Amino acid sequence: MTGNNKKAVVLLSGGMDSATVLGIAHSLGYELYTISFYYGQRNNKELGYATKLAKYYKVKEYKVITINLDTIGGSALLTDTNLNIPTNRIDNNNIPVTYVPARNIIFLSIAGAYAEVVDAEAIFIGANQMDYTGYPDCREEFLTAFEDALNKGTKTGQEGKRIKIIAPLLHMTKAEIIKKGMELGVPYQYTWSCYVGGRKACGKCDACKLRLQGFEEAGYQDVIPYETQ
Amino acid sequence: MTGNNKKAVVLLSGGMDSATVLGIAHSLGYELYTISFYYGQRNNKELGYATKLAKYYKVKEYKVITINLDTIGGSALLTDTNLNIPTNRIDNNNIPVTYVPARNIIFLSIAGAYAEVVDAEAIFIGANQMDYTGYPDCREEFLTAFEDALNKGTKTGQEGKRIKIIAPLLHMTKAEIIKKGMELGVPYQYTWSCYVGGRKACGKCDACKLRLQGFEEAGYQDVIPYETQ
Repeated sequence: MTGNNKKAVVLLSGGMDSATVLGIAHSLGYELYTISFYYGQRNNKELGYATKLAKYYKVKEYKVITINLDTIGGSALLTDTNLNIPTNRIDNNNIPVTYVPARNIIFLSIAGAYAEVVDAEAIFIGANQMDYTGYPDCREEFLTAFEDALNKGTKTGQEGKRIKIIAPLLHMTKAEIIKKGMELGVPYQYTWSCYVGGRKACGKCDACKLRLQGFEEAGYQDVIPYETQ
Repeated sequence: MTGNNKKAVVLLSGGMDSATVLGIAHSLGYELYTISFYYGQRNNKELGYATKLAKYYKVKEYKVITINLDTIGGSALLTDTNLNIPTNRIDNNNIPVTYVPARNIIFLSIAGAYAEVVDAEAIFIGANQMDYTGYPDCREEFLTAFEDALNKGTKTGQEGKRIKIIAPLLHMTKAEIIKKGMELGVPYQYTWSCYVGGRKACGKCDACKLRLQGFEEAGYQDVIPYETQ
């Protein structure tokens, strides 16, 4: 039965965006293969949620890749103590300190290897250029160029097949993402956004602010607990 | 003094090709940053040699990245026991089982992050399309496409600078590589090629055969010990 299914690798962080993407890929009928990364991020609470989401959607296979990107450093999201977590909203004119150098490039490369091994025709990624236009590896121009490089550099591409990179959230606002997810029944209780990573979400960091504002604009109540409530 | 130097990240496996590339980058006057990968390869003996090479060339910084690519599988070079190490020479019409899905894509992505963090203007890679034309991620077409994607997806590229991918061995035969390396005084005693990874090189696997043939054609004697001698 599974042999004839179209297959997709989904990059799953355990955050709201990638959960929505998983819900979208599921709704499109793909057999799902999720991939998550432990890369030395300060807050790895998300990863536990990624497992819950994978189970919820009954994915065919679930991989966790460990890379010590913290040894390279250069981001406030890694254990680079010289950079502080921002709490003053993201300035779209500058690349924020939470930018992890080449993160999506690295994640998409490894997802590309996985797609090739399981013979998936697509890689779904929650890249979004509305909220974080400062992250260069979340922009369409990059994703198109990377898809081209990936297909030139893999056996799959050489064999005349193609691995597509699909970023369904690319041009959506946070509110639109949440509306879409709520329509699809995405279990947002199994997602985590807060940069701080306490027992409850802090409600103050940029990620919490964007999330809360998104729910408000979408006309829904967030279902996770906040310190500030 | 180091502040004004042009900087390069060099992908260093501890094999003969990447050692030669390190020698070339050194001869060009770059301040050197090497990066090596432990990715679940069966034979990780090379990595010890990478450290020796880095010390020999007095590199500014040396990083070892660990990624569990073996969890994805799909290659005889990983701990995928369904695939055997080839000993019948490489067939240039087919991609060999030693192909690791998207390996150079993954390595170049991480090297790209490193280049961005240390502000390097170039990434040197020992890709070669003469001996292993079957590896799609060793071809010029891929490297050009990847350089484009990398610069579109990184802060460096957004800031109008450019990270170049330099593959000086791309069109060289193994004999030409060895000749070049010998001229530059590359310490080939600190390199390892054999797929098997015993105390001495086996002399029988494809990697040993290519190496021995290369030395013979170049008119030099290999300096490492072989089981077959």
